[in-house]
Amino acid sequence: MDYNSIFKAAIERLHDEGRYRVFIDILRTKGAYPNARCFHGHNGPKPITVWCSNDYLGMGQHDKVVEAMEEALHSVGAGSGGTRNIGGNTHLHVELEEELADLHGKEAALLFTSGYVSNEAALSTLGKLLPGCVIFSDELNHASMIAGIRNSGCEKRVFRHNDLEHLEQLLMEVPAETPKLIAFESVYSMDGDIAPIAEICDLADRYGALTYLDEVHAVGMYGARGGGISERDGVADRITLIEGTLGKAFGVMGGYVAADKTIIDCIRSYAPGFIFTTSLSPVLVGGALASVRHLKQSSEEREAQQAGAALLKDKFRTAGLPVMPSVTHIVPLLVGCPVKAKRISDILLAEYGVYVQPINFPTVPRGTERLRFTPGPCHSEQMMDQLVKALVEIWGRLDLEREAAA
Amino acid sequence: MDYNSIFKAAIERLHDEGRYRVFIDILRTKGAYPNARCFHGHNGPKPITVWCSNDYLGMGQHDKVVEAMEEALHSVGAGSGGTRNIGGNTHLHVELEEELADLHGKEAALLFTSGYVSNEAALSTLGKLLPGCVIFSDELNHASMIAGIRNSGCEKRVFRHNDLEHLEQLLMEVPAETPKLIAFESVYSMDGDIAPIAEICDLADRYGALTYLDEVHAVGMYGARGGGISERDGVADRITLIEGTLGKAFGVMGGYVAADKTIIDCIRSYAPGFIFTTSLSPVLVGGALASVRHLKQSSEEREAQQAGAALLKDKFRTAGLPVMPSVTHIVPLLVGCPVKAKRISDILLAEYGVYVQPINFPTVPRGTERLRFTPGPCHSEQMMDQLVKALVEIWGRLDLEREAAA
Ligand SMILES: Cc1ncc(COP(=O)(O)O)c(C=O)c1O
Ligand SMILES: Cc1ncc(COP(=O)(O)O)c(C=O)c1O
Repeated sequence: MDYNSIFKAAIERLHDEGRYRVFIDILRTKGAYPNARCFHGHNGPKPITVWCSNDYLGMGQHDKVVEAMEEALHSVGAGSGGTRNIGGNTHLHVELEEELADLHGKEAALLFTSGYVSNEAALSTLGKLLPGCVIFSDELNHASMIAGIRNSGCEKRVFRHNDLEHLEQLLMEVPAETPKLIAFESVYSMDGDIAPIAEICDLADRYGALTYLDEVHAVGMYGARGGGISERDGVADRITLIEGTLGKAFGVMGGYVAADKTIIDCIRSYAPGFIFTTSLSPVLVGGALASVRHLKQSSEEREAQQAGAALLKDKFRTAGLPVMPSVTHIVPLLVGCPVKAKRISDILLAEYGVYVQPINFPTVPRGTERLRFTPGPCHSEQMMDQLVKALVEIWGRLDLEREAAA
Repeated sequence: MDYNSIFKAAIERLHDEGRYRVFIDILRTKGAYPNARCFHGHNGPKPITVWCSNDYLGMGQHDKVVEAMEEALHSVGAGSGGTRNIGGNTHLHVELEEELADLHGKEAALLFTSGYVSNEAALSTLGKLLPGCVIFSDELNHASMIAGIRNSGCEKRVFRHNDLEHLEQLLMEVPAETPKLIAFESVYSMDGDIAPIAEICDLADRYGALTYLDEVHAVGMYGARGGGISERDGVADRITLIEGTLGKAFGVMGGYVAADKTIIDCIRSYAPGFIFTTSLSPVLVGGALASVRHLKQSSEEREAQQAGAALLKDKFRTAGLPVMPSVTHIVPLLVGCPVKAKRISDILLAEYGVYVQPINFPTVPRGTERLRFTPGPCHSEQMMDQLVKALVEIWGRLDLEREAAA
């Protein structure tokens, strides 16, 4: 068997399609974020400004978070040393789960090593426990939800993105006595649009379906206490299970689900992705606890983020740059070609010290390749002006289309 | 649909079988491990000794590890803020991957958020890329390998544990031109036995199969530089892919694979579990880097661990306690009944301040329920004597069988 040529061919395919990925290696500079040091293509570090981080609120450098991590590190140590069942269940894990349950107004919550694992583990387990369950999945759902649905072994019906009519049509086709689960996200992270949660819950009520909501790109950022869009819209109690991450707005790492006690107990007891793995490091748990607690009582970061996003969209529009119609903190610029998106990103990094990753297939559909900016409370107006100037120059240089100023 | 009664019934089944799990919540005491504080069933913490941690060498409290984590925390911040491709590729990740590739004498390595995810992602991706591949899997392989094999969509043939004849028989049944992968572990963590790696490689050569070796319970602990059993036996270069964890002997959290460049590039480029998730926190990466580097040049911890394990086995044997025939650092005592295993563990915790988790089905086969001790360089002989005394008393109290002293 010539295994090597099979693997080589797999890599060649990516080069041919222009979607072989090169990782840019950086070190963010704690305390000075979005400033960072870029090592890519240099021997030593070079200063850059990061515009594509999902540490949306800069909590990864917040004093309270850093202090809590230091405290856990010195009091408990580096790792948990075990699975949740065998020696790896620290008191910090228990406290954070209580804090997250409270954040979403649910009876219980459960931690995972990542948001990816929480989606995979929770969806596959729920699906396996409900005999004959049909899962209704938004066509733009994240890869981790798709993995969980596939691993559940359930029949899957995909509804058009945020399309209530299509969802209802699919629900109607399945017998009333069949278990049903509707799986969707609140904020879709590549477009920045938001699901009609209340209306989906109406359909769930009408057709007797459970609801599974991924709030990964909303927790910490929406709702008076950072409980996400379901909190903002006052519909958290209508959702069966809310899933979130500790690695984006909360600035640390890890994932979780929140739901009623029995459901959480089922996932805790049956999900291999939860059971058979070393639990989250107490250092991360300590940091996440401080972050969640802080964002429950402080809206300053959320407000600054919304103001920054509005300002940047405005500046893009005024400059005639093709900003996509996002209603959230996410600011995507349409390019529509993987090679050009990469080229713009390369020039920005090499000539302007601006780091924004091109977003290509399979993360977004072909033909909608884009640059995705995530302004936050730490990005100044001056940084925005420099960014816009750079983009306008590059747009001209590459002869890209501009729109009439709004 | 009465969903609630379905979920309730799923929990009831666990209670009925006596395998509903209760997590003991503790806080290990950095600097004084295996001493810890137990919160379970108390309002405040109570001092205990931990005997079941997989922080095998106490690296979770090692000064170099703690200092490196502090340094990364203050220099870079709490989280990475992105996936490896989008803003989450820190220079520390790149350095750690080089260090791990070197540890196993491979061209490249790739980090994951856990050992579980590394097995799931690597096995499923390799299997998907090799058309018609058949995967030969040891019957005692870990849940994460089983998940990866299932998600690869490949045909799976299970060979009896460490049984070369059976493996060869299965290999012979598959046509020469069919791609083949043999997946196994070096140290099996519940029994403490070791796979005949060289002989399995001989079979792989004879039948043209790739080899996939999980060294999760061996890295850091075996081989002159902690490269695992494959280093100790001088066969690392015969293994296609070596998988390991940063969460056990290295004391932190995370997982990895090491192999040749093309294979690593394939997994990096195709595995959803690698691509679509926030990368490891730079704090963890910094700590793991220090831990791997330290254990490459220090054998003190390994030697103390082996001496401790030998001493404890000896003391158990002398006391007539039914220690199972482990050839490694793992010291299991056979109980053979889930209810009794839990009862012994409960008494140890409540009356003796000794924490050792009972190991029940599905982690081990029914009828082989056990207590699993992991003595390390931090467990003193005095702690061992107290442990043996406690066990002898409980064995008598519960009228359990003892063996003639060896
Ligand atoms: C919608 C969505 N869900 C889940 C995840 C996974 O979360 P995590 O990064 O914590 O694994 C991501 C991104 O990474 C995401 O975009
Ligand atoms: C053999 C084996 N492989 C993989 C894993 C998973 O590693 P991690 O704990 O880093 O997820 C474990 C235990 O957790 C294991 O015992």
